[in-house]
Amino acid sequence: MLKLFYALGSCSLASHIALEEAGAEYELVAMDTKAGDQRRPEYLAINPKGRVPALVTDRGVLTETPAILAFVAQSYPSARLAPLDDPFAFAQAQAFNSYLCSTVHVAHAHRHRGYRWADDPAALQEMTRKVPETVAACFQLIEDEMLAGPFVLGKAFSICDPYLFTLAGWLEGDGVDPKRFPKVYDHRERVRERPAARKVLAQEAA
Amino acid sequence: MLKLFYALGSCSLASHIALEEAGAEYELVAMDTKAGDQRRPEYLAINPKGRVPALVTDRGVLTETPAILAFVAQSYPSARLAPLDDPFAFAQAQAFNSYLCSTVHVAHAHRHRGYRWADDPAALQEMTRKVPETVAACFQLIEDEMLAGPFVLGKAFSICDPYLFTLAGWLEGDGVDPKRFPKVYDHRERVRERPAARKVLAQEAA
Repeated sequence: MLKLFYALGSCSLASHIALEEAGAEYELVAMDTKAGDQRRPEYLAINPKGRVPALVTDRGVLTETPAILAFVAQSYPSARLAPLDDPFAFAQAQAFNSYLCSTVHVAHAHRHRGYRWADDPAALQEMTRKVPETVAACFQLIEDEMLAGPFVLGKAFSICDPYLFTLAGWLEGDGVDPKRFPKVYDHRERVRERPAARKVLAQEAA
Repeated sequence: MLKLFYALGSCSLASHIALEEAGAEYELVAMDTKAGDQRRPEYLAINPKGRVPALVTDRGVLTETPAILAFVAQSYPSARLAPLDDPFAFAQAQAFNSYLCSTVHVAHAHRHRGYRWADDPAALQEMTRKVPETVAACFQLIEDEMLAGPFVLGKAFSICDPYLFTLAGWLEGDGVDPKRFPKVYDHRERVRERPAARKVLAQEAA
């Protein structure tokens, strides 16, 4: 059975919701990243990157949210979580998720995880200071150019939706008012009300 | 016909090599990013992100290297550039490419593009200073854990290889001796000698 290593408040929420939307059977392993669970030897043996999420399958371990999301979509095709038979449409979904991981998540990470890229406390403060500006610029681009509506790719819910939902959930913490982006805000409400997200959010909060 | 917007020295090299390996017909449009081509209105109409690469297809524009690479693999299946019929193996390829875009490229970008995440010149200097350490840590992980050899996924060349080749080409500029990572170094030489890379490197240098 699939086993998802996740941490509350992390981007693993996207994979968790996708598994639930897919109707997958899976086990959950909660990681306390503040306590450093992700850097313990037993976890580094599973994921040497020391990050969540990690999805353990009977073939081996998968990491990186965009890869896990596409894997879930391909493994449960009847859930129709991605346009699997159309390389162009699939690439559009992947481009969206790639933007979230390489640009949006990275912009957010400069708030509390600037130590990845600098040591000097003044530089870390300066990175934190700029986060509301950089994160807002990302979501402005999503609002204006990327969110077809009502879901990311249009009428059909896809693996892009739980990922956007997850990162949009960090807006307030990043000092950005989500109501500046009406389509993103409505999308967040729409995904939150789905049975899968409701169940997953309750599971993770338990 | 496909049209690739690329810039010399940028990650668009990966998509360019993949197109060549696939045997695709494509046109090239050279962008001078130092002159700001990527922020001109006519390019922003193609890619509102103002970045390269962008691949114009008859269905629309694709961006983000991992998405373009998977699109090329799926559009030219006879070139066998990804394990398309195996969701787990395909996810491993995607996880590798996702790591390159969200972690390795981002580590590198702090050398000259720290202005994305800070304004204060002292903070930008501090980010630049740490780049050799962070980039080396990424490549140590690739060397130890991710590069099956002789190609990234093992015996078969795939869309992961031109992408690793591209980012490994930045090591010297980032102040990291590539010979610290013998597998990565050998891989770089191996990809460089392939006809596709030779042709593409000559085209871009012309």
